[in-house]
Amino acid sequence: MSAPVPAVRPGTDAGTVPEEVLRARAYLLRCVEPPNRHLVALVDRYGPVEAADRLRRGAVPDELLRAAAARRGTDRSGADLEAAAAAGARLLVPEDPGWPSWPFRSFAEAPRADLAPPIALWARGPGEIATLADRSVTVVGSRAATPYGLNVAADFSATLARRGVAVLSGAAFGIDAAAHRGTLAVDGATVAVLACGPDRVYPAAHTGLLERIAATGLVLTEYPPGTIPGRLRFLVRNRLLAALGVGTLVVEAGARSGTKRTAADATALGRPLMAVPGPVTSGMSVGCHELVRSHQAGLVGRPEDVLEVVGRLGVDLALPPQGESRPTDGLYPRVLAVHDALPARAAWPPGRIGEAAGVGPDELRAALTELEDRGLAEYHQGLWQRPARRAGP
Amino acid sequence: MSAPVPAVRPGTDAGTVPEEVLRARAYLLRCVEPPNRHLVALVDRYGPVEAADRLRRGAVPDELLRAAAARRGTDRSGADLEAAAAAGARLLVPEDPGWPSWPFRSFAEAPRADLAPPIALWARGPGEIATLADRSVTVVGSRAATPYGLNVAADFSATLARRGVAVLSGAAFGIDAAAHRGTLAVDGATVAVLACGPDRVYPAAHTGLLERIAATGLVLTEYPPGTIPGRLRFLVRNRLLAALGVGTLVVEAGARSGTKRTAADATALGRPLMAVPGPVTSGMSVGCHELVRSHQAGLVGRPEDVLEVVGRLGVDLALPPQGESRPTDGLYPRVLAVHDALPARAAWPPGRIGEAAGVGPDELRAALTELEDRGLAEYHQGLWQRPARRAGP
Repeated sequence: MSAPVPAVRPGTDAGTVPEEVLRARAYLLRCVEPPNRHLVALVDRYGPVEAADRLRRGAVPDELLRAAAARRGTDRSGADLEAAAAAGARLLVPEDPGWPSWPFRSFAEAPRADLAPPIALWARGPGEIATLADRSVTVVGSRAATPYGLNVAADFSATLARRGVAVLSGAAFGIDAAAHRGTLAVDGATVAVLACGPDRVYPAAHTGLLERIAATGLVLTEYPPGTIPGRLRFLVRNRLLAALGVGTLVVEAGARSGTKRTAADATALGRPLMAVPGPVTSGMSVGCHELVRSHQAGLVGRPEDVLEVVGRLGVDLALPPQGESRPTDGLYPRVLAVHDALPARAAWPPGRIGEAAGVGPDELRAALTELEDRGLAEYHQGLWQRPARRAGP
Repeated sequence: MSAPVPAVRPGTDAGTVPEEVLRARAYLLRCVEPPNRHLVALVDRYGPVEAADRLRRGAVPDELLRAAAARRGTDRSGADLEAAAAAGARLLVPEDPGWPSWPFRSFAEAPRADLAPPIALWARGPGEIATLADRSVTVVGSRAATPYGLNVAADFSATLARRGVAVLSGAAFGIDAAAHRGTLAVDGATVAVLACGPDRVYPAAHTGLLERIAATGLVLTEYPPGTIPGRLRFLVRNRLLAALGVGTLVVEAGARSGTKRTAADATALGRPLMAVPGPVTSGMSVGCHELVRSHQAGLVGRPEDVLEVVGRLGVDLALPPQGESRPTDGLYPRVLAVHDALPARAAWPPGRIGEAAGVGPDELRAALTELEDRGLAEYHQGLWQRPARRAGP
């Protein structure tokens, strides 16, 4: 089972983080559409409170000023914190000990400007993301998944959750929902990262699912209360999924899939990418196969293969799949040749077996002895044969 | 369609190759169970006629003498040539212009002693192996294949055959038979390499299939007439399949499969190895997935991927699978943000759209203009909206 997570009461973490920090970050979250590297740099330099003040006064670089132009004049941080609390969500900030600092360090070295870390995260649920992310997998895939993909997503997620891996996904239809549900079914830890406000449910049909996730795991978003999702926000959200998971698993993806963006994010963030193969006759596996063919993703055939990547190094090493062993295993080729020459429904003198096998008398004698020792040859009155119970080649 | 193959009359190629060479090689073929590097070295050094004479007299290295001990005393070459001719087979020898010298050159550099070239090949059918091998694929896989595997083997083989690729396989149940049949169904060129004499049929149920292959393609074996198959001979035969195909394609293989040996042979011979993925829930795809995971095989999802490997370099390059294009393709993120913010069932003033998208006035104006140009936004009386026919995010 997953590591026990400390229960955290809903609402803001006012007990540990100063109110002015929460207010400042809530303001910044709404002012500038994420991701924005200039904002991150501003906060890094001045701290959230002074950064917010500077943005309010317009004392920031032009590029940032333009990005914040539409919203910086109105401070809705108080209303946002209240609306979030009413929806059971608190504001998780970098000043909080439960902030996933380690996973988000990868943003600092990412080669793309759009891969900036979030300024803060609205969080709903008892899970602590810093702990969960430490041993986690992000499961992504097509919304128009096939029954095969849905089963694989649920099965892999359940197996990994049982081994203490947190399953992260985006609460969308298809693969996302199957991953969350598979995890919930075994009482595992699952985290949904949304592309809308913490008080919104998208898709609406997943109201119950998100409630269940929030009840035991965690629902995260960087979008302020009331925000509706959009295509860009889904893409932007994907970088958080990619960063928070130790690795990212693609279960099903069409030839052209938003999943590819998450895959690209994971790679840019230095996170291992894995893809589940499927029938080559299925359009929903084309994207997975292309990821493997282009060497962006490693192929995984079993949950153990995923665990090897996202689990504790050296502890969760997967063994190759084992087939059944055969009585003839380990025989030298010449001995195997003699075995093959042994008649099943008759008994032959050694000379005839030697000729059939193309083996001389000395080697033949040694081979027949070894085969007899292994119960693969029987000797009766000068003649050799296979034991009655064994079939032909 | 495949390149036309010159028809060659059955029986020995006595017109071009001296009778004594055919006799000598037929004798050597039967005397020493293949593969045997010492025999190859002997023939390379002295030529087939003197090599045969030396073996008869016992004037050969001890190791070779031991290997030939059981059979070198009897010369059945005349009877073998007659029996083969009666079965419609001729003896193809390295002295023949149709000998696949090029594919077999890889044996010379192979790191394993058991990867020796054949001394000669019994051949039945009008196909010329040297020509066919030049643009060919070896298709292998499980005898206990699933319907999925059988369909993929037949479909890939048919598609490749239509593009002029010869399909080589072992005439076994399962994948082998599906590959041959898929090729025959489109009148393509197919070659069966057997692990028994040219006058034998194994499995017996494939009598009709082998007749059809021999009628238009080619049936090859290095085993003299009368030889029955055995497990060792299947393994030994596999090296010929691996060497003759430009590349080897594994369609289905269990966790423990004889196919792995062919795969290892192909790799040792420097031939590209390809594997078809399948459902991770299928035991018959486990071997394929392991080959990809261990980087022994490249994953192929379409016949085009195979053609890229075995076809003419630079001519048969596969394009990545294409999905449908979307009207929002190529939009910059900020423009996409504005598009996402555009209401579908209402019309908003620019300021409200800018706030929803988090975009300032200048960028907003440029974005709305671009969206309007693309038919993605409509302007009416100071208000913007999405064109009626387009749906939400």
